[in-house]
Amino acid sequence: MNQKRSARELRQHIRSGHWTAQTSGAAAGYVQANLVMLPLREAFHFLLFCTRNSKPCPVLDVLDPGEVEPSIARGADLTTDLPRYRVFRRGEMVDEVTDVKALFDEETVSFLLGCSFSFENAMRAAGLPVRNIEEGKNVSMYKTNRPCRPAGPFHAPLVVSMRPLTPAQAVRAVQVTSRFYLTHGAPVHMGDPAELGIADLARPDFGDPVEIRPGEIPVFWACGVTSSLSAVSARLPLTITHSPGHMFVSDLKDEEMTVL
Amino acid sequence: MNQKRSARELRQHIRSGHWTAQTSGAAAGYVQANLVMLPLREAFHFLLFCTRNSKPCPVLDVLDPGEVEPSIARGADLTTDLPRYRVFRRGEMVDEVTDVKALFDEETVSFLLGCSFSFENAMRAAGLPVRNIEEGKNVSMYKTNRPCRPAGPFHAPLVVSMRPLTPAQAVRAVQVTSRFYLTHGAPVHMGDPAELGIADLARPDFGDPVEIRPGEIPVFWACGVTSSLSAVSARLPLTITHSPGHMFVSDLKDEEMTVL
Repeated sequence: MNQKRSARELRQHIRSGHWTAQTSGAAAGYVQANLVMLPLREAFHFLLFCTRNSKPCPVLDVLDPGEVEPSIARGADLTTDLPRYRVFRRGEMVDEVTDVKALFDEETVSFLLGCSFSFENAMRAAGLPVRNIEEGKNVSMYKTNRPCRPAGPFHAPLVVSMRPLTPAQAVRAVQVTSRFYLTHGAPVHMGDPAELGIADLARPDFGDPVEIRPGEIPVFWACGVTSSLSAVSARLPLTITHSPGHMFVSDLKDEEMTVL
Repeated sequence: MNQKRSARELRQHIRSGHWTAQTSGAAAGYVQANLVMLPLREAFHFLLFCTRNSKPCPVLDVLDPGEVEPSIARGADLTTDLPRYRVFRRGEMVDEVTDVKALFDEETVSFLLGCSFSFENAMRAAGLPVRNIEEGKNVSMYKTNRPCRPAGPFHAPLVVSMRPLTPAQAVRAVQVTSRFYLTHGAPVHMGDPAELGIADLARPDFGDPVEIRPGEIPVFWACGVTSSLSAVSARLPLTITHSPGHMFVSDLKDEEMTVL
């Protein structure tokens, strides 16, 4: 896979059906995003949920109803340019598909939310280990005992992703990831998983377990899966999300979204 | 005036009618906020406008319809705890009052948006001059030639506030204010006002002119007045805002909202 592929090229590859895989590490340096599509009728409450819980659910773009081309990726079409989508009816997953053209209508509102791939790139550039990438796995993700602030019918526990680091590496990771406030920013916790209500790090709720080596502590970041869980929690007639790891790749560069 | 007054004490003072003045410098260190109240029917589009233009319109809190107590100020009542409100009907200002209890109903949604007072405190703590405070004036504010990204019926030009600084002070001000991303963050421009379409710095659109000394350049920050202009632009049956400078004082401390 050509790591230097541009975001636009990757999206065309996906649209034409030649790429249905995960997007981790693809078009490196471009901001990837979580997708949520839902009916206009509940769009206010979902945007409110994201605003009230901006650390796990940082809003990169919200499209007008019926619109498929985001401001952060000119020429893109959100109904075709993700490698895989999940379709939920009344809160139950009913399908997993490679385009959602037939499900999209004039009343559908699309939300793009920041994803931790941006700060993983920055961590690697700073010489920090990203264990899930080293092991070729999906990052370990856990539901926590911390409820998000609800909005209308939307609710969810805070979901976190975890990467093991030595304490000194964790200090550096706080510095490196703080700049990425639109992609979850600084960690929410480090050390004892029980503080977050996590019983067993070897059994993540989403993604894969990774090795934690002697001298390492688990470091936890707010995770975009929170937005998918909350979108589905409202049990709307129709909700569409990306499939985990199969993100939307925008034209924004990671460095364009840092706060300083 | 007691600078050490707590936010809660100041709000009680305002509620009881003993304080109807501007809030600049009052309860120093507490986050102050712009207020917009409008009908639920248009709340989605207004929140969308703020999300799409987060530099001038950073969302600190959005209350549920009919709710008056924000999450960032327990015990407060947004209908009584600001010193002065402006009332607009179909886009025209019809009244300026000290409480809006009688105008508020179950369908009213309140928005609190970040204000530059937070970073002015930080600038002063860093030894930088804030000319408008030195001169005891309201900050100079200007409509620019840069349109915000619209949402539904809401539109506005970017409004900026200006503080004169030497180039070396401007460098330091970029550093100091970048941390305050929920209160407008780093400047949007410095130097030639014509680049922003500003014809004459001595004639601000809002607030007062201030002295620009030899060797100083004007430094421009995104300004919360943008949110008031956009709220009124929709010409809704009823829109309420704070009166300029008469902000809502929250329990948040300035340092709690910095990104790092």
